[in-house]
Amino acid sequence: NRPFRIAVLPGDGIGKEVMPEGLRALDAATKRFGIAIEYRHFEWASCDYYAAHGKMMPDDWKAQLQGMDALFFGAVGWPATVPDHVSLWGSLLKFRREFDQYVNLRPVRLFEGVPCPLAGRKPGDIDYFVVRENTEGEYTSLGGVMYEGTEREMVIQESVYSRVGAQRLLKFAFELAQSRPRKHVTLATKSNGIAISMPWWDRQADEVKKAYPDVALDKQHIDILSARFVLQPGRFDVVAATNLFGDILSDLGPATTGTIGLAPSGNLNPDRTFPSLFEPVHGSAPDIYGQNIANPIAMIWSGAMMLDFLGRGEGACRQAHDAILAAIEAVLRDGPRTPDLGGKASTTELGEAVARNI
Amino acid sequence: NRPFRIAVLPGDGIGKEVMPEGLRALDAATKRFGIAIEYRHFEWASCDYYAAHGKMMPDDWKAQLQGMDALFFGAVGWPATVPDHVSLWGSLLKFRREFDQYVNLRPVRLFEGVPCPLAGRKPGDIDYFVVRENTEGEYTSLGGVMYEGTEREMVIQESVYSRVGAQRLLKFAFELAQSRPRKHVTLATKSNGIAISMPWWDRQADEVKKAYPDVALDKQHIDILSARFVLQPGRFDVVAATNLFGDILSDLGPATTGTIGLAPSGNLNPDRTFPSLFEPVHGSAPDIYGQNIANPIAMIWSGAMMLDFLGRGEGACRQAHDAILAAIEAVLRDGPRTPDLGGKASTTELGEAVARNI
Ligand SMILES: CC(C)[C@H](C(=O)O)[C@@H](O)C(=O)O
Ligand SMILES: CC(C)[C@H](C(=O)O)[C@@H](O)C(=O)O
Repeated sequence: NRPFRIAVLPGDGIGKEVMPEGLRALDAATKRFGIAIEYRHFEWASCDYYAAHGKMMPDDWKAQLQGMDALFFGAVGWPATVPDHVSLWGSLLKFRREFDQYVNLRPVRLFEGVPCPLAGRKPGDIDYFVVRENTEGEYTSLGGVMYEGTEREMVIQESVYSRVGAQRLLKFAFELAQSRPRKHVTLATKSNGIAISMPWWDRQADEVKKAYPDVALDKQHIDILSARFVLQPGRFDVVAATNLFGDILSDLGPATTGTIGLAPSGNLNPDRTFPSLFEPVHGSAPDIYGQNIANPIAMIWSGAMMLDFLGRGEGACRQAHDAILAAIEAVLRDGPRTPDLGGKASTTELGEAVARNI
Repeated sequence: NRPFRIAVLPGDGIGKEVMPEGLRALDAATKRFGIAIEYRHFEWASCDYYAAHGKMMPDDWKAQLQGMDALFFGAVGWPATVPDHVSLWGSLLKFRREFDQYVNLRPVRLFEGVPCPLAGRKPGDIDYFVVRENTEGEYTSLGGVMYEGTEREMVIQESVYSRVGAQRLLKFAFELAQSRPRKHVTLATKSNGIAISMPWWDRQADEVKKAYPDVALDKQHIDILSARFVLQPGRFDVVAATNLFGDILSDLGPATTGTIGLAPSGNLNPDRTFPSLFEPVHGSAPDIYGQNIANPIAMIWSGAMMLDFLGRGEGACRQAHDAILAAIEAVLRDGPRTPDLGGKASTTELGEAVARNI
C-alpha cells in the first residue's frame, strides 16, 4: 500500500495559522495508528499568490495536483486586496466543480464544554449531518440584465439542476442515513413557492427513496425547516439540500450548537475519480489574523474527516478518526480554550493539547 | 370620513377559529378609539370553496373586493383535499401579486412570558423587522425540464427581479429604519455564490442608500446572516431580503423568539393602489383544527398591524394598534395561555382576555 498523498493548501488569513495544527493532529494520529501519509505543500490558491501573479492558481494546477488523494485546505479570501467572488470562484469553487466534489458533508453536533446558544440542550440532543449538493443548483453565472440603466431594468438568474446531480446527492444522503441508527432523511424543499425546480427535487427524492425502504424520507419547506433547526433540532438525522439551502443550513446548524468556528467539512467526490477537499467552514477571518488566537479545531476535525474518507470508514483510518474526535471532545471539555470559547490559549497551544490527547 | 372597509377571509383550518378572535380585538379597539370600520365576509379563498367549485376563488374576485381598504386573512391550505401549490397559488400568492403587495412586513420580537429558545435572552434583546420582497424573485414558474425521463434530464429554474421591484422594497426598508432609533438596514445577499442576481441586488442597495445618509447599510451573506439570527440577534434592526431569503428569515426570526405561532404579517401595497393583506404567519394547521386550541394572537396582532397601516401610523389608529399590542403583551405575561404556551385556555378564552385588556 502506497502512502496517502495529501495536497496541503493553507490559503489566506487564519488558514495559515490553523493549518500547522491540523497537520500536527494528523501526524500524531497517523503515527499512532501506523498510517502512511505524505504531504505536498502549495502556496497558491491564496490571495498572496494572486497579488504576485494576477490569478489565484497557476494554469497547470490540475497537473500539479495529479495523483493526490485529497486536498487539505485552510481558508481562502482576503477582501482588502481581492474581491471575494474572484478569490472564491478562482480556487475553492473551482476545486468543487472541476474535481466534481458533489457532496459537501457537514456534521452538526453539540459538545460538552461548548456553550450552546439554545436553551436547555445537552450533548446528544443535536447530532445530524447536512448533505449539501456542491456542484450545481443556485450558484451559477447564468442569466443577465436587460434594459440596464433604465426604469425597465430587470435581471434573470438561472438555477440549473441535473437528474444525475440530484440523484447521486440523494443516494449519498440515503446511504449515510442507512448507516446511522435513526435512518432518517429530511429533504429541504420549497415546492410550494419555487414552482419548477423544487417539485422536481421532491420527485427525485421520492424516486431515490424507493431503493432504501428502511430509510424514512421527510420533505420540509426551507422556511419551517430553518425554524425547526432552532426549535426541534432532535428531529434531524441526515438533511439533504441543494447548494444554496445546504449552504444556509450548514451555517445555521453549527450556529445552534455554538460551534460555527469549530465546524469542519468534506467536499467529497464519493466516486473517487478526483481528490476530495477537506476544509474548516470558518473563513480566513482577516479581523483576527496574525494574533495566533484562531481556534484550530475545525481544521483538525476536517483532517479527521479526511482520514475517515480515505479509509472508507474502516480500519486504522477509522480508528485514527475516532481518536482525533475523542481528543477534540476532551479538549473542548477540559480546556485549554482559545479566546472564542472564553479562554486565553493560543492556536498553537490548542493544537498541541489535541495532539497530546491523540 | 367614510369607515374603513375590510374584507374578511378566514380561509381554512384554524384560520376559521382564530378569525373571530381577530375581529373581537378589532371591535374592542375600534370602539374604544372611535374608529369607523365595516366588514364584508367572504367564504372563498378556501379549500371548502375549491371542493364545491373546482377553484379557489370566483372569477370576479377582484370586482367583489372593489373598494376594500384591506384584506383580513386567516390561513389557506388543506392538503388532504387540495395540493398546497394549488391552494396557495390560487389565493394568497394571487393576492400578493395582483394587488401588488410588494412588501411582506414581519416583526420579530421577544415577549415577556414566552419561553425563548435562545439561552439568556431577555425582552428587548430581540426587536427587528424582516422586510421581504413579495411579488417577484425566486418564486416563479419560469423554466423547465429537458431530456425528461433520460439520464441527461436537467431542469432550469429562473428567478426574476426588476429594478423597480428591488428599489421600492429597499426604499421601504430604509424608510422604516429611518423611523427607528437605530437606523440600520441589513441586506440579505449571497453575492459570493449566486453570481448574477445577488451582486445586482448589492448594487441596488448601494444606490438606494444614497438617499438615506443617516441610515447604515450592512450586507450579509444569507448563510452567516441566518447563523447570526441565532448568535447575535441584537445586531438587527431592519432586514431587507428577496422573496426566498425573506421567507426563510421570517420563519427563522420568530423561531428564535419562540413565537412562530404568534407572528403576524402585513402584505403591503405601500402605494395604496390596491388593498393590503394582513395574515398570521402560521398556516391552517390541519393537525389541531377543530379543537378550539389554536393561539389567536398572530391573527389579533395582524389586525393591529392593519389598523396602523390604514391610519398611516398616526392618530386613533396608532393608538388602537398600541392598545392591542399592550393587551397582547399583558396576556402573554399574565395568561391565560393556550396549549402551545403550556396552558389550558381555548382560542376563545384567549381572544376574550385580549379584548378585555383592550
Ligand atoms: C405558504 C407559502 C407559499 C408562503 C410563502 O413562502 O410565501 C408562506 O411560507 C409564507 O411565508 O407566507
Ligand atoms: C464562501 C462561499 C462561496 C461558500 C459557499 O457559499 O459555498 C461558503 O459559504 C461555504 O459554505 O463554503
